[in-house]
Amino acid sequence: MGKYKQRASAVNDKQDNLYAMRHSLAHIMATAVMKLWPEAKLGVGPVVENGFYYDIDVEGVNISDEDFPKIEQEMKVVIKADQTFERTDKAIDEAIEWAKGAKQPYKVELLNDLKRAGTTLTKDLDPAELGTIAGADVKKDSASFYTNGDFTDLCRGPHVESTGKVGAFKLMRVAGAYWRGKEDNPQMQRLYGVAFETQEELDKYLKMLEEAKARDHRRLGKELDLFTFSEMVGSGLPLFTPRGTILRELLGHYSQSLREKRGFEQVWTPHMTKNDLYKKSGHWDKFGEELFLVQSQETSDELVLKPMNCPHHIQIFNSQPRSYRDLPIRYMENTTDYRDEKSGELHGLSRVRSLTQDDSHVFCRVDQIEDEVTSLVQAADEMYKELDMELKFRLSFRDDSDAYLGDKKLWTEAQAKLEKLAKDNKLDYYTEDGEAAFYGPKIDFIAVDAIGREWQVATVQLDFVQPERFELSYTDSDGSFVQPIMIHCALLGTIERFLSVYIEHTAGRFPLWLAPEQVRVLQINDQVAEYVMKVKQILSGVVLMKPLKYNELRYEVDERNESLGKKIREAEVMKIPVLLIVGPQDQSAGTVSVRTQDGESKIKLDELGGWLEKQSG
Amino acid sequence: MGKYKQRASAVNDKQDNLYAMRHSLAHIMATAVMKLWPEAKLGVGPVVENGFYYDIDVEGVNISDEDFPKIEQEMKVVIKADQTFERTDKAIDEAIEWAKGAKQPYKVELLNDLKRAGTTLTKDLDPAELGTIAGADVKKDSASFYTNGDFTDLCRGPHVESTGKVGAFKLMRVAGAYWRGKEDNPQMQRLYGVAFETQEELDKYLKMLEEAKARDHRRLGKELDLFTFSEMVGSGLPLFTPRGTILRELLGHYSQSLREKRGFEQVWTPHMTKNDLYKKSGHWDKFGEELFLVQSQETSDELVLKPMNCPHHIQIFNSQPRSYRDLPIRYMENTTDYRDEKSGELHGLSRVRSLTQDDSHVFCRVDQIEDEVTSLVQAADEMYKELDMELKFRLSFRDDSDAYLGDKKLWTEAQAKLEKLAKDNKLDYYTEDGEAAFYGPKIDFIAVDAIGREWQVATVQLDFVQPERFELSYTDSDGSFVQPIMIHCALLGTIERFLSVYIEHTAGRFPLWLAPEQVRVLQINDQVAEYVMKVKQILSGVVLMKPLKYNELRYEVDERNESLGKKIREAEVMKIPVLLIVGPQDQSAGTVSVRTQDGESKIKLDELGGWLEKQSG
Repeated sequence: MGKYKQRASAVNDKQDNLYAMRHSLAHIMATAVMKLWPEAKLGVGPVVENGFYYDIDVEGVNISDEDFPKIEQEMKVVIKADQTFERTDKAIDEAIEWAKGAKQPYKVELLNDLKRAGTTLTKDLDPAELGTIAGADVKKDSASFYTNGDFTDLCRGPHVESTGKVGAFKLMRVAGAYWRGKEDNPQMQRLYGVAFETQEELDKYLKMLEEAKARDHRRLGKELDLFTFSEMVGSGLPLFTPRGTILRELLGHYSQSLREKRGFEQVWTPHMTKNDLYKKSGHWDKFGEELFLVQSQETSDELVLKPMNCPHHIQIFNSQPRSYRDLPIRYMENTTDYRDEKSGELHGLSRVRSLTQDDSHVFCRVDQIEDEVTSLVQAADEMYKELDMELKFRLSFRDDSDAYLGDKKLWTEAQAKLEKLAKDNKLDYYTEDGEAAFYGPKIDFIAVDAIGREWQVATVQLDFVQPERFELSYTDSDGSFVQPIMIHCALLGTIERFLSVYIEHTAGRFPLWLAPEQVRVLQINDQVAEYVMKVKQILSGVVLMKPLKYNELRYEVDERNESLGKKIREAEVMKIPVLLIVGPQDQSAGTVSVRTQDGESKIKLDELGGWLEKQSG
Repeated sequence: MGKYKQRASAVNDKQDNLYAMRHSLAHIMATAVMKLWPEAKLGVGPVVENGFYYDIDVEGVNISDEDFPKIEQEMKVVIKADQTFERTDKAIDEAIEWAKGAKQPYKVELLNDLKRAGTTLTKDLDPAELGTIAGADVKKDSASFYTNGDFTDLCRGPHVESTGKVGAFKLMRVAGAYWRGKEDNPQMQRLYGVAFETQEELDKYLKMLEEAKARDHRRLGKELDLFTFSEMVGSGLPLFTPRGTILRELLGHYSQSLREKRGFEQVWTPHMTKNDLYKKSGHWDKFGEELFLVQSQETSDELVLKPMNCPHHIQIFNSQPRSYRDLPIRYMENTTDYRDEKSGELHGLSRVRSLTQDDSHVFCRVDQIEDEVTSLVQAADEMYKELDMELKFRLSFRDDSDAYLGDKKLWTEAQAKLEKLAKDNKLDYYTEDGEAAFYGPKIDFIAVDAIGREWQVATVQLDFVQPERFELSYTDSDGSFVQPIMIHCALLGTIERFLSVYIEHTAGRFPLWLAPEQVRVLQINDQVAEYVMKVKQILSGVVLMKPLKYNELRYEVDERNESLGKKIREAEVMKIPVLLIVGPQDQSAGTVSVRTQDGESKIKLDELGGWLEKQSG
C-alpha cells in the first residue's frame, strides 16, 4: 500500500465550536500568565489535538506543574469575568510598534517577517505559512488582532464570543520547545492544556488517559516479555522475544489466512532495491527524506530500503504476459518496510523504523473492482469482529483540486462504486472529500479500542496511477492490450503498530488463540507429577481450529517447589488465559481445576481437550 | 551463524598427484600455444577447481573454441613426447634477463616485482602473495623455473615427472581476464581446461556438466515460474512468484518444525542495526566491504544491513537476567541477511545479495554442548534424508596457528566432544584441521546431489568468542556469574542457495509435499463438470501431515476446452507430481485416472484422499 497516516484523528476543523473554545483558552492562559509574570514573552499558541498550548519565555523562571493550580486559578478569574473577544486590524507598521511597546520580541520578529513576506515574496517566507505560525490574518499591509479584557494578541481567530464560553479545561504538562522549532533559537516553555465542551467530556477524557497509561504497551511489552530495544541496534528497531514473536506470527498468519481463502497467493520480495524502481513509480520524489539510502561498497548501484511494496509486486506481475482470464491476480506478503522517521517521533511499537506490513495487491479489470473491494472489506470486518474491536469506515474521496492524477471519469465511477458497496454491505461509514490518495480513492478502516480511542489501522486503496507509470497491461478477449487497476490493501496495517494498539486494547489479556502462553499447569506438589504427565499428554494433542487453523496449544508446566499462591500470582502477572491447578484431590477425582477470567471450575480430564478447543472462536 | 563458505569443494591439495597433473597441463597448454603462436605473451597459469587455465595475450589474435582442436592436438604431441619436467633456480637478475630474451613482458613485470619484494618489503608487494600470483618459489635473490622440452616457465611446481603422466584432459572455454585482475591492465585471454587422472573420470565429469546444464536452476526457475529478477530492483535480488514462495515457505517451515520439536523458539529481529553492534561483535572489521552501509537522512545514526543474526539474537538473550535453570535457551529465525557480493560473482539463486538464513542460536552451559549439537546433527540428518540427499559431515577443527581465539583447553575438549558424538551417531565424517571458525570448531554438512556434486549446505558451530565480547552471563546454582557457550546452526544454510541446489538436484521434480502445484485435475470435457466438482471437494479436504504437518493440498483444475494431449503436455512441462484425468468413463465407474512418474492407474473416488495422504512421507 502507499503512504498512509499513522494517526487517525487530527486537529478539529476550524469551523468547529470546540476549536474556537480551545483557541480562546490559549488566549486566556496567556492572559493569566501575563498577570502572574508580566515580563513573560509570548511565542505562539495554537490548537492541537484535544486541546491547546502556548509557548512562553519568562526569564529566570522555570514554570512547572506546581504552578498549574495558580495559573488555572487566574484563568478561572478571566473566564468568570466573561470578557468579550474583539477583533481589530492594525496596519503592519502600527502592529510592529504595538509589539515593541508591549515588550513582545517574538511577536516583533513575526510581524517583521510578515511585513517582508507581504511585500516581497521570497522562498523562505511564505505568507500563508507565516500566518499559520503566527496565527494571524495577514494581508499586504495589515495584521489581525484579538483582545479580551486588557490582553491583546496577534491572532486570526476564530474565538468564542466571550471568555465565559470556553467549556471545561485542564492544564496537563509543560515541555521545552525551540522558538519556531529551530535548534539555534531560544528554548521556550510549552504549556499544554486539554479542553472539551463539557466537564463530563473532560472527565471522560482524563479517565481515558489514566486507563491508557495503565495499559501502556511499552510497559506491558516489558512485563509480558514481548519485545525489547537495544541501544546497539538503535531506536525504532524493536527486537521480538519468543512470546512477542508468537503474537506477530499468529496475527500475520491470521491476516493471510483471511486473504488466502479469498484467492490471494504469497509472494516474497527483498527489502532493498535500486532507486530506479522508485524513480519509475514516483515514490522517489514523494518519499524523499523518509528513504533509507543504501551504499554498495562493491558496485556503483544506488540502492534504498523499500518503504512500501507495490513497485516490487508490480515487477512480479510484469514478469509474465497476462491475459484477461488470469485476472484478478492477487499477491500478499507480510514483509518489513523501512522508513526513516525522525528520532523524536519514535514511540514504542506505535512509531518504528521497521514496519512489517500485511500487505497485498490485486491486479484486476475495471469490472472486477467491486467484487475485490467487497471481499477485502468483508475480510477486515471478519478480522476486527474476531479481535473484538469496533470498526468504522471512512470513504476517502478526492476534492476539486488538481492534486489528483488519473482520469476524472474513472474517479467518479470508482467513488460511486465504493459508496454503493459500503451501502450494500451496511458499513458504518462516512465520506471525507480531500482525503483520497493522489492515485485513487480509498476506504480507511478506523478501529475503536476498549477505551474509546480511534486508530486508523488498515486501508483499501484503488490505484489508477502505478499501472500507468509501470505500463502494465493484459491481453483482453479481443486481443487488445488493456491497463489493469491495482487495489492496495493491508488488514492490520503494520503489525508493529497494530500490536501497540492491540496490547493496549486488551491490556495484555490476549484471547486464548493468540496468547503466547495459553495454558499453565500449576502442579501443587510432587505427588501428582505422574498425573500431571497425563494432563500434559492431553494438552499436547490439543489443536485449536478457530479463528486460525492448526493452532497447536502452547502450554507450560510450573512444577517448581513453590507455594500455589506464588505460582498463581506469577501466572496472573503474565496474564495466562487458562490456569490448570492440579493437586491430589484432582488426581483422585480425575479432574483439573480450571481458573480463567470467568472464575474457577472443575473439568474432567477426558473433557479437557474438547473444552479447550471450544474456548477459541 | 557466522561467515561461511558458499562453495564446498576447493582446489585440490598441492601435495596431490591430480594437482601436479593439472599444473603440468597448464605448462603443456602453454607449450602448445607458443608452438602455434610463437609471439604469444604468457601471464600466469594456475590450477583451479577440476582443472587449470593459462592467461595468454596474442596480439591481433582472438583465440576461440574453434582453435581448441588444434591446441589439443599440439598438447597431445607434447604429451606423447613424454618430456621430463626439470626444475632450475635462476638468480633474480638472470631470471629477468631470461624473460626479456624470451619476449615475455608479463614475466618481466612479475620478476621485477619479485625482486623489489625480495629486497624491500612494502605493503603493496607481499612476496608470498606475489609468489602465488607468479606461481614461483621466491627467495631473496632467486626464482624457480621448470622446463619441459624447449619450454621454460617461471614456476614453483609441483609437476608430474614427465609430460606423459598427465591423465585425461579437455579444453573447455576461453574468457577475457584483466592482467592481475585489474581493470586498468591489458585484457588477456584465459584458456580453461579440465583434467582428471583417467579418461573415465573425465567422461563422468563431462557428463555431469551436461546434466547440470539441463538442470540449470536459472532455466528451471523461469520454466516453472518460481522466481524472477528485475533490472529496476537490481542484480542478486530475486523476487519470488507465488509458486517459488510456496517452496521457500515450506522449506523454511520444515526446517523450523524440525527445531521446534527440539525446543527452539522463534524470534524476530530487524534487518538493520547501528554499526555499534558489529563493532562490539567484531564483525565490523571482519565483514568489511561485504556490509551494505545505510544512511539515515533524519538522524546521525550510522546504520548497516545485517549480514548475520547472532549479535541480534544476543541482544534478546541479554534483555533479561538468565539463570542456569533457563538454559539452554534456543532461538531460531528465518530472516534475510544482506551481503554486498561483487556483481561478477552473482549467479541465479546460488550467489545473491539477499540471503535468507534458517538461522538459530543456542545459549547453553558447557555440560549441555554435546546434547545440543547431537540434537541439531540429528535434525540435519532427518532433513536431508527426507530431501533424498546424501549427507557428509566435516569436523572443521583448528590447527596450531594463532588464528583462533578463546581458551585452548576449551577447544581441545570441544573438538573431542564433536568427534565423540560423530562416532556415537555413526556419521559419515572426516576431520579437517585449519577449517574451524576463528571463534570455535564446527561441523559442516556437505550434501551430495543427484549428479554427484557436493555442496556445503549447513553448519553447526561452537562459539566461545561472542559470549565473551558481549559479556553474556547466567547465574549458576551457586550464585556466581558464568559465561554461556553459543551454538550457531542453520539446516538449509540459506534458503535461496539451498533452492538453487535442490532445484538442480530434483531437476524441478519436487516431492509431493513440496510441489507448488501438487495435483492437477484434467477435465476431459464439460459433461463431467459436475463429477469434477465432487473430485474438487475431496481434494479440498486433503491435508498432508508428513514431513510437514497441516500441509493443505494445492491443486488446480484444467477445465479449458482443449485436447487432453495438450493438457497433459502442459502439466508435464510444469512437472506436476499427480495428474488426475477425469472423463465420462471415470464418472460412470466412480474413479479417477491417476498419472504420476510411476505410471497410470485407476483409483476409486472414495479412496483418493487416503491415497494422496499416503504419497507423502
